Amino acid sequence: MEFATEGNNEVINLSPELSKRIAEFRGSGLVHLFVAGSTAALSTMEFEPGLVKHDLKATLQRLVPDDLPYEHEATWNDDNGHSHIRATMIGPSLTIPFSNGKLLTGEYQQVILLDFDTRPRRRTVIATVLV
Amino acid sequence: MEFATEGNNEVINLSPELSKRIAEFRGSGLVHLFVAGSTAALSTMEFEPGLVKHDLKATLQRLVPDDLPYEHEATWNDDNGHSHIRATMIGPSLTIPFSNGKLLTGEYQQVILLDFDTRPRRRTVIATVLV
Amino acid sequence: MEFATEGNNEVINLSPELSKRIAEFRGSGLVHLFVAGSTAALSTMEFEPGLVKHDLKATLQRLVPDDLPYEHEATWNDDNGHSHIRATMIGPSLTIPFSNGKLLTGEYQQVILLDFDTRPRRRTVIATVLV
Repeated sequence: MEFATEGNNEVINLSPELSKRIAEFRGSGLVHLFVAGSTAALSTMEFEPGLVKHDLKATLQRLVPDDLPYEHEATWNDDNGHSHIRATMIGPSLTIPFSNGKLLTGEYQQVILLDFDTRPRRRTVIATVLV
Repeated sequence: MEFATEGNNEVINLSPELSKRIAEFRGSGLVHLFVAGSTAALSTMEFEPGLVKHDLKATLQRLVPDDLPYEHEATWNDDNGHSHIRATMIGPSLTIPFSNGKLLTGEYQQVILLDFDTRPRRRTVIATVLV
Repeated sequence: MEFATEGNNEVINLSPELSKRIAEFRGSGLVHLFVAGSTAALSTMEFEPGLVKHDLKATLQRLVPDDLPYEHEATWNDDNGHSHIRATMIGPSLTIPFSNGKLLTGEYQQVILLDFDTRPRRRTVIATVLV
């Protein structure tokens, strides 16, 4: 699956696209997701603007600020040291169970892609269905 | 698997129930776990009271305090903004290898459910065995 | 797979060994990894010294310092309370897709083992290929 992001902690809701992809499968199974790249991550979240646009960003800015001196930035003359660290801490891999074409996530729990890079990116999320 | 929790960072040891469920399987395999809901997470931990009842809570309270102003709380008039952020950071999905009916975890490493919500909850952990 | 580490946040690049193990597999599949033990974790990262030797360590020392009083340490008279908490937060399990013998990670994205213990360890990472 391909997604265009704005970077800068944009959170993309993957559940709509993912739900389409598994709609045809009867019985029980798992769908594994992996985001390629060192500055993005996958998790789940209630997809409402307070959390997605404010609280998550505020937390990550407090914990892994974008304005500390990172050796990564000094070495490569770039500005995304914090993006790498945030991505490593949350992780690139997630597996979700489904049954009869529906994700078995909680009522408000959405599968999310988090893009921590400092510029717009095109992201590849590799989905593998296990039945 | 269903578990009643007290919320408020209660940590439940899933290994005993999980060990029962895989005891019958010969050969090698994987068991995937997923917790439904946006305010709980899965990981592993040495299950001793110092870590489980004190150190983990103290760390999370320092990193993602329950008494900061969260937009989520202002929007929905609730009190669990920190619960959502903690759950997203640790993640809802975990896969554990087993062999001949035994989990291949470390000697003291237990599979845990963390409930970050601010009230008692009944949690569903979906277990899928891959052989 | 067995790896000798120095502990103290040493980061080991697992991609070279992992790439050898999956080189023979045609078609698409997944490789699941699990690190046994309560003071180590798995994730991905661009494997360059700025991030690996400095930025990640500095972040974790700021967020989960090794010199706070941990109940775990008081109980067991040891010094690795922070190691346990760091490991639980990042997590012991990771699944990576591959195709025709190659990991489908990003160009600079390496699979890593993080050892947070306070002494050298021999670590077992259990790899399971799903095809």
